[in-house]
Amino acid sequence: MFKIVELENGLENVEGFYCGATNVGMRPDKVQGDVAFIRSNVPCDISSVFTSNTFQAAPIKHFQKYPKDFKTDFVLINAKNANAMTGEKGVEDIDFIMSTLSKKQDVLNPVMSSTGVIGYRLPLEKVTSAFDTLDFNSKNSDDAARAIMTTDSFKKELAYKVELEDGTSFNIAAICKGAGMINPAMATMLCFVITDADIPKTDMDALLLGATEQSFNRISVDGDTSTNDTVMLLANKKSNSYNKEAFASALNKIMFELAMMILRDGEGANKLVSFEVKGAKTLEEARKASMALSNSLLVKTALFGEDPNWGRIASTIGASGIACDDETLTIHYDDLLIYSNEFRELDKAREDQAYTIMKQDAFKVTCDIGLSDSSYTSYGCDLSYEYVKINAEYRT
Amino acid sequence: MFKIVELENGLENVEGFYCGATNVGMRPDKVQGDVAFIRSNVPCDISSVFTSNTFQAAPIKHFQKYPKDFKTDFVLINAKNANAMTGEKGVEDIDFIMSTLSKKQDVLNPVMSSTGVIGYRLPLEKVTSAFDTLDFNSKNSDDAARAIMTTDSFKKELAYKVELEDGTSFNIAAICKGAGMINPAMATMLCFVITDADIPKTDMDALLLGATEQSFNRISVDGDTSTNDTVMLLANKKSNSYNKEAFASALNKIMFELAMMILRDGEGANKLVSFEVKGAKTLEEARKASMALSNSLLVKTALFGEDPNWGRIASTIGASGIACDDETLTIHYDDLLIYSNEFRELDKAREDQAYTIMKQDAFKVTCDIGLSDSSYTSYGCDLSYEYVKINAEYRT
Repeated sequence: MFKIVELENGLENVEGFYCGATNVGMRPDKVQGDVAFIRSNVPCDISSVFTSNTFQAAPIKHFQKYPKDFKTDFVLINAKNANAMTGEKGVEDIDFIMSTLSKKQDVLNPVMSSTGVIGYRLPLEKVTSAFDTLDFNSKNSDDAARAIMTTDSFKKELAYKVELEDGTSFNIAAICKGAGMINPAMATMLCFVITDADIPKTDMDALLLGATEQSFNRISVDGDTSTNDTVMLLANKKSNSYNKEAFASALNKIMFELAMMILRDGEGANKLVSFEVKGAKTLEEARKASMALSNSLLVKTALFGEDPNWGRIASTIGASGIACDDETLTIHYDDLLIYSNEFRELDKAREDQAYTIMKQDAFKVTCDIGLSDSSYTSYGCDLSYEYVKINAEYRT
Repeated sequence: MFKIVELENGLENVEGFYCGATNVGMRPDKVQGDVAFIRSNVPCDISSVFTSNTFQAAPIKHFQKYPKDFKTDFVLINAKNANAMTGEKGVEDIDFIMSTLSKKQDVLNPVMSSTGVIGYRLPLEKVTSAFDTLDFNSKNSDDAARAIMTTDSFKKELAYKVELEDGTSFNIAAICKGAGMINPAMATMLCFVITDADIPKTDMDALLLGATEQSFNRISVDGDTSTNDTVMLLANKKSNSYNKEAFASALNKIMFELAMMILRDGEGANKLVSFEVKGAKTLEEARKASMALSNSLLVKTALFGEDPNWGRIASTIGASGIACDDETLTIHYDDLLIYSNEFRELDKAREDQAYTIMKQDAFKVTCDIGLSDSSYTSYGCDLSYEYVKINAEYRT
């Protein structure tokens, strides 16, 4: 038995960690920072999950130059420039930034993470000027969470205290950014999780992969994986407290909640919809159909239009290429049966009920393929005029 | 040597074929028909390509009940109702419609094709009332082409005369509908090609597959394949003229031009963009990257915003998972080099040139992966506010 208690604020709840941000002029309006840091006063184990995009950004290449299982005590993050598609020079720029940092502050294997426009080298003078103004002993999670935002409309931070049966406790906290629905080339998903739990490195690696699969990998990013997507977990072990099941539960919870925040903040999105596909022949088929639903433009626009017609749902499942049969398929919106072999045409009463469900901020679509027992749930949002506006005008 | 001459109008150019349409009240505004027919006064060989969607619509299931290599002389087409996801009843409805037809008109193995909303059975009384008003001896391609439209903003018909070296000639004509970019569940792509060429059935099958791969399979339909997509080729052999190379050329041309019309008529689309991926390791990788580009929401919105940043192009190629390397990649907009290892950052002069190119109604994006020699071209369009509006409001 264990208890997960939500705490106020974010990263400052974890012992031994410091964080903050500054504005170096990359974000011209200066209402928030554009360079943030997270550091620990003792070396941390670090686990990470990076984008599957073949063109990995320079910070990811830089990270991978460290030996396997290296320890670190410093993460530098910037917005407005992805340092992606910048070639070997992009990696050398990070070496230069980190060597400048090391003249101001003792750091061990510092790592970097970037988000913003692709194809431009970092403005080195601006970035390194951060080291003159950052207070490395500050604990300002709010500033850090705001500094890493791009088209995000609100900051994303969370912290939990995990109380174990033996009376000990540890903390876990995270900040995250992502402009929601889909925006790989310029609005990468970044997430930094820190903990003082006394967690072994092997557990860190396995649990981070598992939590990523249950959270960020299940939200609609349209196959268009960013060059910069990054999830990092840093553990400084300061608490002398750990339980694998409790930690896994807290890590899954914090990453899932942050993923849902990203969806709720989806560019121009108004609705959060979960797509459960069950009764599929294999897990892979359930996943394929579920992700097809959360990525389908036609489904997304139907959600925006609050159109209860299940035709686009069924057609998308059929188009995903999985084994399915219109005689065994059923579709529910929340608890309302909207399609089955016996109920193909929507009558007025059920159509009215469906409208009521679809007007909610969040609801669930359940598709039972009816062939076997594999299931998968992914999460999507609607596609509005605002999405087109944001993405047509982003760079200018 | 042969010569392909474009003719005026459409299906009426092909000897022995008749066509027309009527409004039976399924399209309430009555500005155009909703039931169309194409018939031949002698039995035709027929070849077809159908959707890969697992949920094939009732007309496709009905078609497949005929023996392999059956002959037909009649195609009935309706708009406003897809007769999809209607179960066995949907197929029985077609049997009923055709038996009613056969009381009015001698027909051999009549086939049907439908487009419209999914999940509702055809209104049998309305559909069969068409047989009281249709003139089966009319040659009105314009009416037929308009009757099969859904969200199409213009009719799509084409006809060619093919003159051979031996002094003989044959005709080929087609009507087609498709609301462009993506609209599987309700705006299926349908295409009916007729010819009086004396073509063997084996050539028909092979050439139709080839022409489909070069045309409709290369336009952006977003993976969301409709339940009803259909391409049919009917040949009544009346001309006693045929040459395989000439016929292939004319068939490829007519289907490619119709596919481009669909794209130009894309819902809310303003630009037609071709995406050539060359220098890929395999044809499959070239195809994968090219289709990823024409399907990417981020690329589509960047086209709409006329944003010359190549970052979304590069990121989408990387996300497609093909072998690629930012050191060997080059990207051109028309003839303008927009990205290479040596030109990563857009300077003002090239950015201005890129704007000029992107303001055109049509342009070409060429991505040379630089690893080997496989290439593939697909065709897409931009994504505008109008698209969202059309698809959010379609059914109501």
